[in-house]
Amino acid sequence: MNELPRAVVLLSGGLDSTTVLAIARSQGYEPCALSFRYGQRHAIELERAREVARAMGVTKHVVAEIDLRVFGGSALTGDAEVPKGRRGDEIGGGIPITYVPARNTIFLSFALAYAEVLGATDIFIGVNALDYSGYPDCRPEYIEAYERMANLATRAGVEGGRPLKIHAPLSSMSKADIIRTGVALGVDYGITCSCYDPGPEGQPCGGCDACLLRAKGFAEAGFEDPLLQRSR
Amino acid sequence: MNELPRAVVLLSGGLDSTTVLAIARSQGYEPCALSFRYGQRHAIELERAREVARAMGVTKHVVAEIDLRVFGGSALTGDAEVPKGRRGDEIGGGIPITYVPARNTIFLSFALAYAEVLGATDIFIGVNALDYSGYPDCRPEYIEAYERMANLATRAGVEGGRPLKIHAPLSSMSKADIIRTGVALGVDYGITCSCYDPGPEGQPCGGCDACLLRAKGFAEAGFEDPLLQRSR
Repeated sequence: MNELPRAVVLLSGGLDSTTVLAIARSQGYEPCALSFRYGQRHAIELERAREVARAMGVTKHVVAEIDLRVFGGSALTGDAEVPKGRRGDEIGGGIPITYVPARNTIFLSFALAYAEVLGATDIFIGVNALDYSGYPDCRPEYIEAYERMANLATRAGVEGGRPLKIHAPLSSMSKADIIRTGVALGVDYGITCSCYDPGPEGQPCGGCDACLLRAKGFAEAGFEDPLLQRSR
Repeated sequence: MNELPRAVVLLSGGLDSTTVLAIARSQGYEPCALSFRYGQRHAIELERAREVARAMGVTKHVVAEIDLRVFGGSALTGDAEVPKGRRGDEIGGGIPITYVPARNTIFLSFALAYAEVLGATDIFIGVNALDYSGYPDCRPEYIEAYERMANLATRAGVEGGRPLKIHAPLSSMSKADIIRTGVALGVDYGITCSCYDPGPEGQPCGGCDACLLRAKGFAEAGFEDPLLQRSR
């Protein structure tokens, strides 16, 4: 039996990264999941990441500890209020206060270290340039520049061999496209968590940007969100 | 009184990063030091970084906690033996086993987050392409690619403003050049620690690559190493 090539998949346990995990598997990779404990408000996110990894048969799942609070500076790791009830046209405008400085750059750097240790040359990340146009580190030109840098940073860049590839399969997909893709690949969205400010049992608040984008995506895709069924 | 522009300086407490701190200060920056607790063998490194920051009047010094051991894979964070007594021509050859996967990429990513929070656009790192030719992430082309990526990753890249600059002032300097520069800037090398495998009080082992390069540098620069005077 041939072994599948390994790929590092950044997994938050949210809708996007769970879909990316399914995509990586469908493309013939053995996904090795990487999650972070980074001072986020809700531990529920990591529980969901573990549940997703289990449900999707992932055998390697590493949780790396990083503390971004040492720098301060953002709602998702600090004490600022998460904005609620914004209209769709407000969500895309400017850099949101939920932006975490250099977060994807830090996450990808850990992914790079993990890939190097695994001997993997593929990294999957669920960034999306459409819904999150306000985040500079979700844009395709950023991912391309990261990939170029990564190929100079690692043994592969010195010793030759297969170049490192950063896959961002959701980059130009709408939330509805993402959901349709995941449903077709058998993803159970009932175990994912998207909310920026969930209740103690992981119930979505329904009002933050992430909840609003998710609801809009399910409505456009023509599916009912199984998470809402589960919450009822 | 005008405020000096802030710069993030990666500070390990070693000879190179201490010199870089002095260079940043001499160029008119207020250095904000960033060190890491990353599962390294010796806590002495961080003590020296604190001592260096204090001695050089640094008012902001952040120590970020990251655990690279979660991935395994290198002598400096694992259980492999640090090589001792290698000849100079052996030190440069190939990627040494003391190489930590993606370490500089991770360190720079934290520096990027810190810079963004501080509103700084300058990052100083003590990489050196001559003595450590075996480390892919010490090469000038790597630093340039990192800078390019960083400018796409951050608010500055979206909102305009002064671009982010990664300064690697030691890049093409010999160890003797570095020591001469530091001595001219008043650096006290007696409080720095370079050794990969120091004794409990921080005494250099004298045999690892870092000790050998340091000894050669002091000999070529024509100075006695104050650390050896202190250790006696």
